[in-house]
Amino acid sequence: MFFNKTAIIGVGLLGASIALALKEKKLTREIYGCGRQEERLKTACQIGIIDKYSLNYKDLCSDADLIILATPVGTFRNIVEHITPHLKNGTILSDVGSVKGSLVYEIENSMPDDAYYVGAHPIAGSEKSGFEAAASSLFDGANCIITPTDKTNKNALSTIKTLWETLGCNIIILSPQKHDAIFSSISHMPHIIAYALVNTIGEIDPDFLKYSGRGFIDTTRIAMSSSNLWRDICLLNKENIITHIEIYKNNLDKLKSYIENSSSETLSEEIEKARCLRLALTKYKEIEESIPTNDDY
Amino acid sequence: MFFNKTAIIGVGLLGASIALALKEKKLTREIYGCGRQEERLKTACQIGIIDKYSLNYKDLCSDADLIILATPVGTFRNIVEHITPHLKNGTILSDVGSVKGSLVYEIENSMPDDAYYVGAHPIAGSEKSGFEAAASSLFDGANCIITPTDKTNKNALSTIKTLWETLGCNIIILSPQKHDAIFSSISHMPHIIAYALVNTIGEIDPDFLKYSGRGFIDTTRIAMSSSNLWRDICLLNKENIITHIEIYKNNLDKLKSYIENSSSETLSEEIEKARCLRLALTKYKEIEESIPTNDDY
Repeated sequence: MFFNKTAIIGVGLLGASIALALKEKKLTREIYGCGRQEERLKTACQIGIIDKYSLNYKDLCSDADLIILATPVGTFRNIVEHITPHLKNGTILSDVGSVKGSLVYEIENSMPDDAYYVGAHPIAGSEKSGFEAAASSLFDGANCIITPTDKTNKNALSTIKTLWETLGCNIIILSPQKHDAIFSSISHMPHIIAYALVNTIGEIDPDFLKYSGRGFIDTTRIAMSSSNLWRDICLLNKENIITHIEIYKNNLDKLKSYIENSSSETLSEEIEKARCLRLALTKYKEIEESIPTNDDY
Repeated sequence: MFFNKTAIIGVGLLGASIALALKEKKLTREIYGCGRQEERLKTACQIGIIDKYSLNYKDLCSDADLIILATPVGTFRNIVEHITPHLKNGTILSDVGSVKGSLVYEIENSMPDDAYYVGAHPIAGSEKSGFEAAASSLFDGANCIITPTDKTNKNALSTIKTLWETLGCNIIILSPQKHDAIFSSISHMPHIIAYALVNTIGEIDPDFLKYSGRGFIDTTRIAMSSSNLWRDICLLNKENIITHIEIYKNNLDKLKSYIENSSSETLSEEIEKARCLRLALTKYKEIEESIPTNDDY
């Protein structure tokens, strides 16, 4: 596996880390970068993350063997529309987006006959953003979900699998639908829940926030995520999220009615069910975390 | 301020830390402990946390100048009923419970004429529980909320204030109602939200939990809290919690409808409102925490 020319669209933390890892593993001859800010791309060239940059999709993509979309997932449709006219025979297009589902089929269907799209979602990141925080080791030990369809080219799939394996990832193959159902439930819906919780305190009395402890702080940390990115994720994974919010509201109503009716025993059971499920997760993930106590209120 | 005999009911992390701090600050001559397990109380005596123990409320309370309830808040009603016949003139009863509201008035009304109740809620704890984890410094720098009513004896209030100040706390005076409204919103309701979220994934597919990342893990950590304690808290602060869940559901429905209708702009605004409120909290509390990124999904 060797890519003569690789194009990375979006030279942020993930895009730049892919660039560094591709170079370190000697998987590519040259890397082109593309992004919104020319000054940033110049700096990325100067410090050796990418070899060249272009703001022109034709220059960027026309000879590329491998193209990776590493911009926020909400930008994919537009970018794909602009790059597909310039793909050469055999080009593999992949991405690092956190929504798959119908987007995968859309991108697949917009590809020319001799170019191949394979969806991927490496679960990696860092507290910092931007290419300054990039590291070739970012993906070491991380899961990478790959989402082929019935139409996915077998060789392209195998190449993308090998690529992420070489970058240190554990590969998980999921259908685009399964991927989105999973991430709606354990990631997208929890964000919406956290937004609603913070806005609820804002409505009750924002002054109450100053009394918050570790519990509230941890519960709402994800509400600080980039709002544009998460708006796009919510809209792209709409159907799953709406379904899951409904299931969530039923579970919340159940607890509410047990409290309202002072159904001590069923309330206990419902709380205990959650506690055991959550404790099992700690054990399964081998997470070092503290059981909440008084100051976690 | 000096207490000849202090009785601590519930010699766990908080009760034992109060005992150690009272001794260190030379605020008491002797400390009696009480609890459910005689073996544990014996050990607490042997290692010098308490001086004596009794499983008999009469022995425990009859000469006590200060009595502190440090058991789970759901047990208070029953204990108060049993100790009030044995209180001597001038005894001060206080507690460390995380629900106040009507419970404060109930306890107040059940006190004999010459004994005084003052509600307190020190916001302190540790990752560990039990008296083995106790420390006289546990309350150093912590907030302690004191919840007097119109009927609270001024001298008793002043004594309890001085007590917690001497133990290193910043005193915050709140009405029992205000205390419960605040803690319902920033502590009790978030727990219920976390239980509902974990149970929702359990209903969708518990297998999905293995894909969860830092975001879900942090958001649901409080779901591992003691279920009996939290059942009692939910039931004792019922009215506030029910009201707050309703406000929360409205905020959730708002987000849901924006997603459903692809109202990109209003969705952005709603997310951004939460993000800004939450960021302000980080700043206000001077918390060192990471802004969520890709691996926090």
